[in-house]
Amino acid sequence: MNLLILITNDDGVTALGIRRLIELMRTKGDVVVVAPSSHQSAMSHAITTLRPIFYNTIEKSEGYTEYSCDGTPVDCVKLALAELLDKKPDLVVSGINHGSNSSTNIIYSGTMGAAIEGAISGIPSIGFSLQDNSEDADFSGALHYANIITDKVLAGVWDNGVCLNVNVPKGKIGALKGIKVCSQSFGKWHEVFEKKENGEGKTAYTLGGWFEPDETDLNGDDFALSQNYISIVPVKFDFTDEKMVNKLSDWNG
Amino acid sequence: MNLLILITNDDGVTALGIRRLIELMRTKGDVVVVAPSSHQSAMSHAITTLRPIFYNTIEKSEGYTEYSCDGTPVDCVKLALAELLDKKPDLVVSGINHGSNSSTNIIYSGTMGAAIEGAISGIPSIGFSLQDNSEDADFSGALHYANIITDKVLAGVWDNGVCLNVNVPKGKIGALKGIKVCSQSFGKWHEVFEKKENGEGKTAYTLGGWFEPDETDLNGDDFALSQNYISIVPVKFDFTDEKMVNKLSDWNG
Repeated sequence: MNLLILITNDDGVTALGIRRLIELMRTKGDVVVVAPSSHQSAMSHAITTLRPIFYNTIEKSEGYTEYSCDGTPVDCVKLALAELLDKKPDLVVSGINHGSNSSTNIIYSGTMGAAIEGAISGIPSIGFSLQDNSEDADFSGALHYANIITDKVLAGVWDNGVCLNVNVPKGKIGALKGIKVCSQSFGKWHEVFEKKENGEGKTAYTLGGWFEPDETDLNGDDFALSQNYISIVPVKFDFTDEKMVNKLSDWNG
Repeated sequence: MNLLILITNDDGVTALGIRRLIELMRTKGDVVVVAPSSHQSAMSHAITTLRPIFYNTIEKSEGYTEYSCDGTPVDCVKLALAELLDKKPDLVVSGINHGSNSSTNIIYSGTMGAAIEGAISGIPSIGFSLQDNSEDADFSGALHYANIITDKVLAGVWDNGVCLNVNVPKGKIGALKGIKVCSQSFGKWHEVFEKKENGEGKTAYTLGGWFEPDETDLNGDDFALSQNYISIVPVKFDFTDEKMVNKLSDWNG
């Protein structure tokens, strides 16, 4: 039996990053793509509950099926698992994102939302991101390591509920130093809203700003990336701060 | 100087839950409301980056300002902190949500997205949810405990980056047993999409299904709620699975 690999992303089904990831994954098994029909960046773990979603079949051939869906990345995973796939996939991969999802950015990321949803469903899952926002980014380094990391995950015995947040520095393969398994860093966004009158007396606020990585934590992904390593953060969907559970125990009763 | 309290939610600014929460918080300090103009349930930590957002001023009086915003709950917090507030608030409260955000649901919740965003910004933050989805739910029990819990948070020395996920069982105050500080449970959604032909040859898929709480973990919030306790899960925004960081250390290099 061939492996079954589910692929999604948040940049939309036509983005270069997912096209290159599809090529790679087709060398490893049967592939089903269920990806957003349009840009769904920064959609985090959002799901669509207040309206229905629709999908289109783009291609159906031996070992390969491609759908687009007008929902969020997490909607794509839920629709795939509940409706579109005949069996549970062996792997969920999301990306390759055009832009970094390291550090605190994981919480905003649609790419990682989809990977975490795979993990919640008990499927080994990986989110891949390249630290290059451009539409025609060079994915060769990211693909080289996506290949290695995917094989490691497929060969391993995987803990339920864990996925990987993989970020790859911008640049040629030769400049990349290798893999570093890390903790999540806590870089900080400095939000700046661009303000523009809309011509009807209202001000339009467009979110922007700049991200300050935290490179002081030498075990964190921000530092690893600054040193040209591929960062891998193993991710779980447990938000509990256990230290605080103990600290607040005198609130009980 | 009065305390400054920022209030938001995901059910929209007119929902009964936030109106009752506003009344309560106005007894404690100056209040600024920046809440979604329409329903933003299940928007998780999504932010709006592909279009501008707008806000409306609904009320401005001594110690009280109310805005609505057409963005997500997290957009509301970001807009408040970057543009609408003169100073950093002492507290961010989100809710009271019409419906549970306990257990695994935290990851989908717009209510908790906003509270976590407050914590990311270094502000003590609390998300309140009532296990009753109805529009005219009885919030008296939730308000009784929101009052107690808010006072505890304001009186305490708060760790940076921590917020609280507070869930209150449905029902009268008399039936509620008290507070239990818990870990996050891992209940499971069983997704069922409702299918309907849209009359143009396409099928509309509406996400639904049922949630199976995990009441086997006696330290978890699902169990506490099943016993009619108010559950409080202290929440941090660190997704790292440290056990797996160690387990995968031979990948380094």
